[in-house]
Amino acid sequence: APTVTPTCMKHFTGDSFVGPLLTDSYQFTMAYAYWKAGKHDDAASFDVFFRKNPFGGEYTIFAGLSEVLTFLEEYKFTAEQQAFLRTLIPQAEPEFFDYLFSLDCSQVKIRSIREGSVVFPRVPLMIVSGPLGIVQLLETTILNLVNYPSLMATNASRFRRAAGAGKGLLEFGLRRAQGPNGGMSASLYAHLGGFDATSNVCAGLTYGIPVRGTQAHSFVTSFSSLNDVAGKSMVKRAEGQGSVDLHQEAVAARDMLQLSSASNEGELASFIAYAVAYPHAFLTLVDTYDTLSSGLPNFIYVAVALEKAGFKAAGIRLDSGDLAYLSLECRRVLKEAALKTGIAHLEHSTIVASNDINEEVLSSLNEHGHSIDTFGIGTHLVTCQKQPALGCVYKLVALNHKPRIKLSQESEKVTIPGEKKCFRLYSNTSEHPLVDLLTRVDETVEVGQRILLNHVFDSAKRAFIVPDRVEELHSLVFDGKSLLNITPSYLKEARAYCIEQISHIRPDHARRLNPTPFKVSISTALHQQMKALWEEEAPIVELK
Amino acid sequence: APTVTPTCMKHFTGDSFVGPLLTDSYQFTMAYAYWKAGKHDDAASFDVFFRKNPFGGEYTIFAGLSEVLTFLEEYKFTAEQQAFLRTLIPQAEPEFFDYLFSLDCSQVKIRSIREGSVVFPRVPLMIVSGPLGIVQLLETTILNLVNYPSLMATNASRFRRAAGAGKGLLEFGLRRAQGPNGGMSASLYAHLGGFDATSNVCAGLTYGIPVRGTQAHSFVTSFSSLNDVAGKSMVKRAEGQGSVDLHQEAVAARDMLQLSSASNEGELASFIAYAVAYPHAFLTLVDTYDTLSSGLPNFIYVAVALEKAGFKAAGIRLDSGDLAYLSLECRRVLKEAALKTGIAHLEHSTIVASNDINEEVLSSLNEHGHSIDTFGIGTHLVTCQKQPALGCVYKLVALNHKPRIKLSQESEKVTIPGEKKCFRLYSNTSEHPLVDLLTRVDETVEVGQRILLNHVFDSAKRAFIVPDRVEELHSLVFDGKSLLNITPSYLKEARAYCIEQISHIRPDHARRLNPTPFKVSISTALHQQMKALWEEEAPIVELK
Repeated sequence: APTVTPTCMKHFTGDSFVGPLLTDSYQFTMAYAYWKAGKHDDAASFDVFFRKNPFGGEYTIFAGLSEVLTFLEEYKFTAEQQAFLRTLIPQAEPEFFDYLFSLDCSQVKIRSIREGSVVFPRVPLMIVSGPLGIVQLLETTILNLVNYPSLMATNASRFRRAAGAGKGLLEFGLRRAQGPNGGMSASLYAHLGGFDATSNVCAGLTYGIPVRGTQAHSFVTSFSSLNDVAGKSMVKRAEGQGSVDLHQEAVAARDMLQLSSASNEGELASFIAYAVAYPHAFLTLVDTYDTLSSGLPNFIYVAVALEKAGFKAAGIRLDSGDLAYLSLECRRVLKEAALKTGIAHLEHSTIVASNDINEEVLSSLNEHGHSIDTFGIGTHLVTCQKQPALGCVYKLVALNHKPRIKLSQESEKVTIPGEKKCFRLYSNTSEHPLVDLLTRVDETVEVGQRILLNHVFDSAKRAFIVPDRVEELHSLVFDGKSLLNITPSYLKEARAYCIEQISHIRPDHARRLNPTPFKVSISTALHQQMKALWEEEAPIVELK
Repeated sequence: APTVTPTCMKHFTGDSFVGPLLTDSYQFTMAYAYWKAGKHDDAASFDVFFRKNPFGGEYTIFAGLSEVLTFLEEYKFTAEQQAFLRTLIPQAEPEFFDYLFSLDCSQVKIRSIREGSVVFPRVPLMIVSGPLGIVQLLETTILNLVNYPSLMATNASRFRRAAGAGKGLLEFGLRRAQGPNGGMSASLYAHLGGFDATSNVCAGLTYGIPVRGTQAHSFVTSFSSLNDVAGKSMVKRAEGQGSVDLHQEAVAARDMLQLSSASNEGELASFIAYAVAYPHAFLTLVDTYDTLSSGLPNFIYVAVALEKAGFKAAGIRLDSGDLAYLSLECRRVLKEAALKTGIAHLEHSTIVASNDINEEVLSSLNEHGHSIDTFGIGTHLVTCQKQPALGCVYKLVALNHKPRIKLSQESEKVTIPGEKKCFRLYSNTSEHPLVDLLTRVDETVEVGQRILLNHVFDSAKRAFIVPDRVEELHSLVFDGKSLLNITPSYLKEARAYCIEQISHIRPDHARRLNPTPFKVSISTALHQQMKALWEEEAPIVELK
């Protein structure tokens, strides 16, 4: 068989729309105004950050970086796009378009946090610098390529936490995702955030994510009676010679076990047909007619038949009803059948559950007890139903290396001005980080140094720290070209890094309800710079 | 200037991922099991429908049809996809792949409701029929291509209703959308559902949607003082000879009007720079430092300066704070300035507002009074924050022209079996439809005929109707190829049709809070067919 390697490991989005025009029109109208004012080549620095963790939580996973870098590397206007932009700003001088269409990202630099990192509000995820004209144009696309991936990876990590590390987690969301690419991004970033596999075949091919899936209700309902499998129920034995007639064996098992007087015959036929195709991987949907009186008995009959051919049945999928009760009841019946038939492994058949599951359902299942091995999760995961958008923003923090500020009547919307660094500080006594510290770009933070931590907005809140370990969070990932080596194993590595990062979150920061906020502080120098600029720029209103 | 015509009117998604692999893996595993059972060429019929209107409402807009038809027309496995599928079902017989890779949609038929229609729960949006093998494979992609577009168009129509017909509605959501394509689909279907324009440039080029946008906070904060526009503030007069120095005129207006002692000088410089680039379309963001004490006065100074050059300033954008209060206060100040300067139109400057607006905010603004002309709406619109997924399903209703049913312990999850028609019935006394009636495919419904309407699940709920007008909702749109003529004006026509359809919804069905459900009934023959099949297939549990 030919080998297939994921094609789009670099081009994660694979989306034909990603390019210079996937942006807000004001980026272009501003570009012309900058150019007219002669400011387009001013050295600008923008911070990408968010103000609030999603889902009522106190942490976020940063994702989307590799897609951003790919977008930057390929930044180029096509002839058609050029023609369209001329119609968008018809009054612009022709020389402007000469400038605009010559733009690329060769003068852009990005310092970034590593993809898959645990991050917190106000810490820049990326610091994008370069000539004002081009760096401004990148805003919307960068935000689009970071917001949903980070939201999705965060959501996945929360589902993983709620399900427990030992459980299987399958992403089943393609049909309910926000558009085709919404589905693809969901598969990708759910995997990065800790899901095991996806039902999305295209994501399997494109990103190399393991693919899973068995059958739908339509498969079951397409069979009306055992006549539908007449003459088509033979399977070759797993080992040795000859074949076994699953039809005959399943009916014999039914006669012997008599688990229900009401099992649906069309359903039994569909299970036999499925087992004929997948004798080594027989996992079947049991709720089409009735889980306990029809689906589960029919599964057991076919499982017993398969055993005669030397195959171990894999398990069942529940897709409706009370999943806690049904899974426990199924396990009990499976155990009884194992005893009665002597097929010990039958008791341990995999139970997959997949009906509108969200984080709360997972927590509630764990609380009440259940016997589910694997969860298939769709809508709530991929649309991030609990909060379908992350609010990353892209704010100008320096122009020609002078700090700039954006004020607001809502004080939490004020930006932290200036080019900066960020350090994560640790003590020797714990693997959990203590605090993130934002500093001016000309500061350094060293182990053993006594540092005053300042609250961003509340001058009264201060603390000292002497860190035993200091981790600088940003590194240069783009300098006219991508410095990140996006190999075929990039996703696997980012996923492993993400899982490791999550394991280092202090439990009270990660809990589902009422988590403790992680501290993000600013250095005294940065605090003073912010205060000075605020006083300089803020109008003082005269009350009349 | 070269003309640009939208390139993707037919290929609405323009998404390189849309194709046979953008589906759940179980579609392929089932395909093999169908093939093994010799059922792959059975004549199947699937209904696409939803069970509940979104957003707590009582209507839905159907959208996504043209993208579905494009997907079907181009259904074809690439060599790479073929190689990947072989690895997905490694144990399948080679002849299966010969069959699978020869599949296309030449034998598929779709009867569909018109795109842009108002639709209700349980009425099939599309009825997809053809050989079981191929028609099953289409499930996930069709659902993906219908769910979000319909949700989005419905959401847009609700925002339109909440804002009022006379208001401008701009879609600003690209940066917060669920992936690049999520953003593109949002722009497209927001326009179909009633939005006027988008900020998304790529959507402008691709779909021909009007594009709008002015400037961001970063534009304003990139200017520090009036020095930044020194020597760059001349604009040519709109008519006649010579130029006007906006810098000089704006400072003169500031000295004359003295609207605030606190207006920020960098902000004034940025407004001058913007007016130099866009003297005929000067609309500016006024909340960077403080709306009333800085942004609005600076806007007025530059508006007065522009007037000297013969240009009428367009307006302001509010992006934070209390939008009701600020818009009224801005209007009051604009009116005073109009009186003081003799520039009458200044009073009627456009006020755009754009801060985290949702349906509830629109309703509340209307309730409290405001002076906003145009709303820019992002996150809540494009992610459909109130309910980010529509639950369309794709259910087998007939095999070889015999009805099939899917039962469930949750009775609202039971399907209505059989191939069907749907009629929308009207009386002469109203333009609002009275009821949708589902019938068997062999029934007809005629004007003047006395018809018994049956509730889908509750036999006790019945009513008679004698319709004055009967509209059959489905027509054949795909018969091996698309019968729909997707011309460059398709979107415009679908949008007009949608707006007209919405105007015919009875107001109590459309209201935001506690709307009345629209009645969807089934004919007696369909009711009997459903009951008979239910009794035949449902296992009767023996209580022990």
